[in-house]
Amino acid sequence: MTESSTNLRLKLPVVCIVLEVILIILFGVLVEYDHDTSSYKWHKNKTQPTDYENEFYYRYPSFQDVHVMIFIGFGFLMTFLQRYGFSSVGFNFLIAAFSLQWATLMQGFFHGMHGGKIHVGVESMINADFCTGSVLISFGAVLGKTSPVQMLIMAMFEVTLFAVNEFVLLSVLGAKDAGGSMTIHTFGAYFGLMVTRVLYRQNLDKSKSRNCSVYHSDLFAMIGTIYLWMFWPSFNSAITAHGDDQHRTALNTYYSLAACTLATYAFSALLSHEGKLDMVHIQNAALAGGVAVGTAGEMMLTPFGSMIVGFLAGTVSVLGYKYLSPFLESRLKIQDTCGVHNLHGMPGVLGAIVGIVTAVAATTDVYGLGMSDVFPEIAKGSSAARQAGMQAASLGVTLGMALLGGLIVGFILKLPIYGAPPDNLCYEDSIYWEMPGEEEPKTELTLVKTAPEEMEKLN
Amino acid sequence: MTESSTNLRLKLPVVCIVLEVILIILFGVLVEYDHDTSSYKWHKNKTQPTDYENEFYYRYPSFQDVHVMIFIGFGFLMTFLQRYGFSSVGFNFLIAAFSLQWATLMQGFFHGMHGGKIHVGVESMINADFCTGSVLISFGAVLGKTSPVQMLIMAMFEVTLFAVNEFVLLSVLGAKDAGGSMTIHTFGAYFGLMVTRVLYRQNLDKSKSRNCSVYHSDLFAMIGTIYLWMFWPSFNSAITAHGDDQHRTALNTYYSLAACTLATYAFSALLSHEGKLDMVHIQNAALAGGVAVGTAGEMMLTPFGSMIVGFLAGTVSVLGYKYLSPFLESRLKIQDTCGVHNLHGMPGVLGAIVGIVTAVAATTDVYGLGMSDVFPEIAKGSSAARQAGMQAASLGVTLGMALLGGLIVGFILKLPIYGAPPDNLCYEDSIYWEMPGEEEPKTELTLVKTAPEEMEKLN
Amino acid sequence: MTESSTNLRLKLPVVCIVLEVILIILFGVLVEYDHDTSSYKWHKNKTQPTDYENEFYYRYPSFQDVHVMIFIGFGFLMTFLQRYGFSSVGFNFLIAAFSLQWATLMQGFFHGMHGGKIHVGVESMINADFCTGSVLISFGAVLGKTSPVQMLIMAMFEVTLFAVNEFVLLSVLGAKDAGGSMTIHTFGAYFGLMVTRVLYRQNLDKSKSRNCSVYHSDLFAMIGTIYLWMFWPSFNSAITAHGDDQHRTALNTYYSLAACTLATYAFSALLSHEGKLDMVHIQNAALAGGVAVGTAGEMMLTPFGSMIVGFLAGTVSVLGYKYLSPFLESRLKIQDTCGVHNLHGMPGVLGAIVGIVTAVAATTDVYGLGMSDVFPEIAKGSSAARQAGMQAASLGVTLGMALLGGLIVGFILKLPIYGAPPDNLCYEDSIYWEMPGEEEPKTELTLVKTAPEEMEKLN
Repeated sequence: MTESSTNLRLKLPVVCIVLEVILIILFGVLVEYDHDTSSYKWHKNKTQPTDYENEFYYRYPSFQDVHVMIFIGFGFLMTFLQRYGFSSVGFNFLIAAFSLQWATLMQGFFHGMHGGKIHVGVESMINADFCTGSVLISFGAVLGKTSPVQMLIMAMFEVTLFAVNEFVLLSVLGAKDAGGSMTIHTFGAYFGLMVTRVLYRQNLDKSKSRNCSVYHSDLFAMIGTIYLWMFWPSFNSAITAHGDDQHRTALNTYYSLAACTLATYAFSALLSHEGKLDMVHIQNAALAGGVAVGTAGEMMLTPFGSMIVGFLAGTVSVLGYKYLSPFLESRLKIQDTCGVHNLHGMPGVLGAIVGIVTAVAATTDVYGLGMSDVFPEIAKGSSAARQAGMQAASLGVTLGMALLGGLIVGFILKLPIYGAPPDNLCYEDSIYWEMPGEEEPKTELTLVKTAPEEMEKLN
Repeated sequence: MTESSTNLRLKLPVVCIVLEVILIILFGVLVEYDHDTSSYKWHKNKTQPTDYENEFYYRYPSFQDVHVMIFIGFGFLMTFLQRYGFSSVGFNFLIAAFSLQWATLMQGFFHGMHGGKIHVGVESMINADFCTGSVLISFGAVLGKTSPVQMLIMAMFEVTLFAVNEFVLLSVLGAKDAGGSMTIHTFGAYFGLMVTRVLYRQNLDKSKSRNCSVYHSDLFAMIGTIYLWMFWPSFNSAITAHGDDQHRTALNTYYSLAACTLATYAFSALLSHEGKLDMVHIQNAALAGGVAVGTAGEMMLTPFGSMIVGFLAGTVSVLGYKYLSPFLESRLKIQDTCGVHNLHGMPGVLGAIVGIVTAVAATTDVYGLGMSDVFPEIAKGSSAARQAGMQAASLGVTLGMALLGGLIVGFILKLPIYGAPPDNLCYEDSIYWEMPGEEEPKTELTLVKTAPEEMEKLN
Repeated sequence: MTESSTNLRLKLPVVCIVLEVILIILFGVLVEYDHDTSSYKWHKNKTQPTDYENEFYYRYPSFQDVHVMIFIGFGFLMTFLQRYGFSSVGFNFLIAAFSLQWATLMQGFFHGMHGGKIHVGVESMINADFCTGSVLISFGAVLGKTSPVQMLIMAMFEVTLFAVNEFVLLSVLGAKDAGGSMTIHTFGAYFGLMVTRVLYRQNLDKSKSRNCSVYHSDLFAMIGTIYLWMFWPSFNSAITAHGDDQHRTALNTYYSLAACTLATYAFSALLSHEGKLDMVHIQNAALAGGVAVGTAGEMMLTPFGSMIVGFLAGTVSVLGYKYLSPFLESRLKIQDTCGVHNLHGMPGVLGAIVGIVTAVAATTDVYGLGMSDVFPEIAKGSSAARQAGMQAASLGVTLGMALLGGLIVGFILKLPIYGAPPDNLCYEDSIYWEMPGEEEPKTELTLVKTAPEEMEKLN
């Protein structure tokens, strides 16, 4: 695909240093502590009751769970490839470290400046990690076929567009999407799918032997899966309103994921060869339940509703891996390495639809005075139907922006200047990493066997 | 042992889907949000001071630590087997996802309905995870010798009996057992040991070659061990009374575990071949200190007392692995794959005894007005001796229910309809999982070696 | 180097049991619950507003993050060695479990006794974990070349000296060092470097073949790296003042680490062979940003300042691995297995300097009434220059105590009585651990291949 070298000796340092210097300058000019992080501001108001009311104590544990999902969850989930573990964890790490800084600026700009300044604190940290999650979803679609330089450039554009889309949804349309079924999952998935479509490689089967797992790489990937699964309740509830909202969102997500897991095992065994479970399904589809309650999780979805949604999401996701992914690859030329369409794309759209349905059913009988937290527009006098309309419009806007953005960025990334791997060296760590020697079991075994004797001599 | 096929193509989907559909229906009929998760209820009472007092903020971090123990801790602890990593993590995942839903219903039923409804929130989430832990302990006893269908059936019965036993102990007898030395560990261990006794396989040595670890599988297992060890203070303190109780329980558990670890290393080196440490001991016995303060951790056990208990627990556990487990297998025909008798059984009983002793020593001089949190019965006028008696009775009830329940459930699981593995294919992932190809180091090495040349050509 | 046996059958049990018995006795005599963990004390004061104000809720989540860094972070970071994974995680576990108990006593003694008693609670737990971190840094310097008995003896002395140094810095000099750039990182690194200098092994190249990683061991190490990276904001903020201080410290650390990561990737690619990234750099240098804001993180460093510090720290650290470590080994005979000089030594000194500079710039305009939390001495009337002077003096004291202490302890550890490995068996698990059999892929493969047939027969 590309004629240029994969040697990154100058490309990667130049891109990293230039981006970081720009970030540092912009942070110096634009960013300041918010009320809860500034020594001066926090202590200014003497009526401030106690230090215990600092936002830190009510968001930071959620933030750390989200942080684990971004760096361990996404990072290790992608280590399933047998020869791409360094890149999966390592590039995930690099892209995320860049994206969270850039997202702080982009989101700060759109979320509203304060006298020309962007205010930062634990909420901006969570939001930046959320935006980063979207970039990592797109990374999953192109995994193994791109260089880290390409990924940094993609992240730069995607973060920017993410912030625009998020602004349109939450601020212009007044949609609710606390867990990001639309803003994070749908956006990240369809953006990534369009990028991988544009970067289509006709001769990718030359790297086919490496586009699969080995025993231990699947176990490493399960670390990612389980962390994502466990902490998804924290993810969906991290930025909802305080009190019952955060509590309910975590609860709904917990039940959705549990039901999703049983659906995943059921359909994996049903559809796989000889009734055997497929690690690809377990690693991915079991998470779809978290995606699918990303919008409605904070609503009065009930545990019952959450479980139905989770069950559907797991089912759709396994079916997608089994039937849709091969179709997308052969017919639409979409080479989706991690199957993000099945884990984030379809479940994200499902989540958006669940949000529409749940919004249209919102009544004061059910929400009481809590309506102003969940649906501030309805509490202010708008109708539930109108809220549902805005939710639907948001899905449309997100799909449009993701696909159009992915198309343009895909062409930018197609330029042969980023050190992308050749078709026969995709999914291969050794082109970007110093590789350690291979283990030589025999020598080891000999050493082990001689050890006792040597030790006896030493006695 | 079984003549039926291990093919789960229909069995597993049918069981998963039927169970999940039943769960969803029962949740729809019986479950509703509690005061702190319902938008309506939380906002109903205008004198409710602030959102910051929602139970979420005082239990959810503990819940997430417990959640990690259940899914990562138990899951990876069992990956020590060389060819059973997928099943260890994967079936742990499936069983736990089912059990926590079923436990919500069973415990909700026994903990008291509210106008015919079960109320759910973060406390029910923690309790459900606790009950799940008990099932996973039993899973450890039969690991490698059972099918996932069998395990789901076992979980269904065990969760039910767990809820009954817990109700008898905490509500009828008025015993205290916040960290579950009795309800979780003793119950889970002896239930599982009885099940594995009934499922005894005479020809299990046909699978002997796989019933051991390899280098990397032991490292994966250490992930489980360390997470269990670190978060045990959260486990024991997750549902104690707020304030000093939670704080003290975490502290006591922390010291018990630290002392237990030194005892484990000491006795492992002392008893092992040539003074070498045995990974089995480190992975398991170092955790016994957490089990053994499961009952008394919330009491005024003092750090001094906690360390003595931890030291004893580690010692007993290593001795159990060294001397008792072989005896149980050869004489009593109890094939205890993970040695749950040494990690959960004996330390659980020890914990119950420590609880009896600590209860009998309870005085108002030591507890002050906090007596009503730790020993509400004593605060209401009952004597410390009576409380100790109830603690002792609870141990007896637990042992009885676990052994009797395990016996009955064992015979139910003996039916040759669940797809259990034959004797010569125990501890083997490939009968239930699609297996990835084996790594072929030579080919890889060649690829790596040719890569630079190819890249030079590209330059 | 040593003529004595590496057999630890008696040595390790004796040392573990003697130390633990001493600990238990001293805890029995000296330790009691503090106000927030004692049932009596907490409930004594009826005006105590609510259980929700217990310190537990505002420190325990941070404590657990720190705990994960100590046991998973440090433990797995060191598993990069191909044949030393058991020892890395396992000895880390043992040393830490001992150190945290001993540190509770030593720090309790120096932090001020209460009527002859040491008070314990979540703050003492965090402080003990911090002190343990320092010991584990030193462990990194001598990794693979020492026995667990040696490490326990080292820990005993180092914890004691740590407590003295910490007392001098924080209580005598009035320095600020919440995240321990000086007390933890500089102290631990230079202490360990001096120990490894004294324990210099001329013939260490006999073990050269094992002093490197293999593919999977590098992935295990990345688990450690990522956990350290994610939770470093919790580490630096764990014991700062409540409110804005904790919040700001976490934020500053987050930005420093993000900038550090980009610098690490940039310089790793720039300096490595053929522009390839080096896992050693990624695993270690990306963390230097956390070390370097250990002192100034709680100050009004601003995100801008934090990012500059992080960028510098990453750069210095990669340069250290590339150029300084080989020099230290060949010229100064310092064999620093994990390169702690590059991760903790230089970034720690940098952090101390950043603290000096930030302190000298402290004004009431910037800190407002919060000055009394960050710089109590300045709030009481001392000058910023004087505070900076105390910070500078603290760096000097720390370096002096670490080097002198390391020298003396190094000679104590040189005695040939601890079962240290011979030169040709360094970095080798099998001398201290029962080793599992090697995986035999062929047999496995056969089993897997025959499995379907056997299963068909069973049908």
